[in-house]
Amino acid sequence: MRRIEELAAISEDTEGVTRTFGTPAFLAGSALVRSWMENSGLETRLDNIGNVRGRLVSHNPNAKTFVLASHIDTVVNAGKYDGPLGVLLGLDMLEQLIAQQVELPFHIELIAFSDEEGVRFHTTYLGSKVVAGSFDPGLLAKQDDNGLTLADAISMMGGHLGHLAADAIPAPNWLGYFEVHIEQGPVLWERQIPVALVTAIAGQQRIELTWCGMAGHAGTVPMGMRRDALAGVAEFVLLVEEFGRKHQHELVATVGKLDVRHAASNVIPGEVVCSLDLRSADAARLQVAYEELRALTEALAARRGLELHWHLIQYTPPVACDAGMNTLLAQAIADSGHEVVALVSGAGHDAVPISAVAPATMLFVRCFEGISHNPLERVELADLAATLPVTDRFLSLLIASH
Amino acid sequence: MRRIEELAAISEDTEGVTRTFGTPAFLAGSALVRSWMENSGLETRLDNIGNVRGRLVSHNPNAKTFVLASHIDTVVNAGKYDGPLGVLLGLDMLEQLIAQQVELPFHIELIAFSDEEGVRFHTTYLGSKVVAGSFDPGLLAKQDDNGLTLADAISMMGGHLGHLAADAIPAPNWLGYFEVHIEQGPVLWERQIPVALVTAIAGQQRIELTWCGMAGHAGTVPMGMRRDALAGVAEFVLLVEEFGRKHQHELVATVGKLDVRHAASNVIPGEVVCSLDLRSADAARLQVAYEELRALTEALAARRGLELHWHLIQYTPPVACDAGMNTLLAQAIADSGHEVVALVSGAGHDAVPISAVAPATMLFVRCFEGISHNPLERVELADLAATLPVTDRFLSLLIASH
Repeated sequence: MRRIEELAAISEDTEGVTRTFGTPAFLAGSALVRSWMENSGLETRLDNIGNVRGRLVSHNPNAKTFVLASHIDTVVNAGKYDGPLGVLLGLDMLEQLIAQQVELPFHIELIAFSDEEGVRFHTTYLGSKVVAGSFDPGLLAKQDDNGLTLADAISMMGGHLGHLAADAIPAPNWLGYFEVHIEQGPVLWERQIPVALVTAIAGQQRIELTWCGMAGHAGTVPMGMRRDALAGVAEFVLLVEEFGRKHQHELVATVGKLDVRHAASNVIPGEVVCSLDLRSADAARLQVAYEELRALTEALAARRGLELHWHLIQYTPPVACDAGMNTLLAQAIADSGHEVVALVSGAGHDAVPISAVAPATMLFVRCFEGISHNPLERVELADLAATLPVTDRFLSLLIASH
Repeated sequence: MRRIEELAAISEDTEGVTRTFGTPAFLAGSALVRSWMENSGLETRLDNIGNVRGRLVSHNPNAKTFVLASHIDTVVNAGKYDGPLGVLLGLDMLEQLIAQQVELPFHIELIAFSDEEGVRFHTTYLGSKVVAGSFDPGLLAKQDDNGLTLADAISMMGGHLGHLAADAIPAPNWLGYFEVHIEQGPVLWERQIPVALVTAIAGQQRIELTWCGMAGHAGTVPMGMRRDALAGVAEFVLLVEEFGRKHQHELVATVGKLDVRHAASNVIPGEVVCSLDLRSADAARLQVAYEELRALTEALAARRGLELHWHLIQYTPPVACDAGMNTLLAQAIADSGHEVVALVSGAGHDAVPISAVAPATMLFVRCFEGISHNPLERVELADLAATLPVTDRFLSLLIASH
């Protein structure tokens, strides 16, 4: 908790926490994390995308590598726990192993990923994609809001573009991946349980919908002669909510943006643009839900005489956590005296790119009222205290099984 | 129609028509209208608020005054007919009387009001309030977007602030008021009828509603744990629509503005602000509807656990047209061979302030698809041709009845 506070004090501005990829505050934060790793006895280095990496090596030089990780970049005006919690809990886990002089049957690498949030270059998982070996060099030309490219930013941090590929852990060398992260949602808070097993990270479909009716004077067009685009969208918002509630164990569905074009209190809305965010851990279910919602929406628009443009903006497939890892993690939770709650992560995490090359799992830690991406984000000391035996037990079980 | 085109060519910009109160384009337009009145043989003058006034006097010096009027200012990017149609049809009516050397039992005054739309000083009916004697001198301190006061604007147009009160037609001198105006709605267009009698001008209540729920991550908060402010507002929009449809012969109800605060496609809306515009020709019905809608809305918010702030921004009471005038106008319409359609005006007109001192009525003329406040605003030549016998007949009936 002391380390979390110390890292959170390093920020681009004075209110909240802001440490976006490659900024002086970010570099100061990563230097601090590296110094902690170094002082704990890890072999440390800064890789070419700015990840801080610390290794605890096995006596077996041919052993595979198990990775403990999370990220140390933040959103703008963030909290203190989203990312750093997993990195610093990982460091604590390794310190326990060192103190207990545990004989390691595999290497363990602790990684503080440099860019998970994607604030600066509007592309997420830069750090973990490099480690997973899936970094697309085409991203190097992406520009930040000041016109600097990602290539420029890497060079200014002292990274070498030609060495990015060599920073990957080769696929055959991976033993597995474990990430501790705050839940960023209210389920554990409501259920009064400190930790949960993550079984999957939801896939996401993001759709932009444009609805066209007929604008008119709010005083002069009788109710029966209207083609009110906003009334159609209102029906859509409730349809989405009802659909999400009906299938609440399988998916979430949200209309977050809604813009009435040329809006005025005395004008019947003629055009409305809105968003739809649809997430599910089950790829087939997600696709079926997408098609069902699209058909319901098109029927609604047709019934109201509204023109509808349905535009799929983004699709991210769901990722399942590794069954074997999850069995060990569930046992560690049960052994620590807690009910084993299995959650699907609705938010994306570094475990997404890593899961393409390694068996991955995650542990969620309860956060205050589920609030995240906000200076109010908070983890109770008691929940940290409840988490440590679970993560230590998990590592013991993993070591014992190899 | 030629005069309408000639006046429409005088504009502050080249696209559409824009002649807002007191601008050079406005002054050029009013000078042209005055010259037409002068050439037709009226006694003309520009009053101190910039109204163009032309009189055709009775031989009886003690006669009352009947006013034909509409306005010649416009909204920004307006059409050609909203306002000028009534003024130039009035001029045509007087030219017919002059040509036929009709003996007038009362004076007739044609007025081109200088500010009905209220674009420049955000206050409507400046011209007609002066003529009705209800102009509030407190308005003189109102500023336009350049910081010029209404008092400055009047002085720059050559008006004298001290003479504004004397420009009123004293209450005992009024015989009545007649205004021809485009409908600005689709009823006549849909029913394929050229003109309609106006029985009332709707009263209006304008409400701003602020809805507070709980913002959250669209991926991590399960459907059952949400307090989505937008879903509540969606239910409200449909409630308003259903209420309006159920009472469609008595009122119109519109949600025109809707703003999701801090909107993002992956954030559950925590706060939404929207508008409600409610209009009815029946003051008692309007008040009952207002209370009914408020109760339904508060129940909806409470059921969803949303905090609701209901703020009445504006109330304008309805105005009934004069029954005696309407009987004559209905007869003129029937005598001209048209079905007598009675409409309520949902939009405000100069007849509103005038009706406080004089028996007033209005004739609506069909406009293309009900479109107004738009360069597409259009009146068919055939509808003008159908209107002239009605207005001439109305004046004949009025003269015959005195």
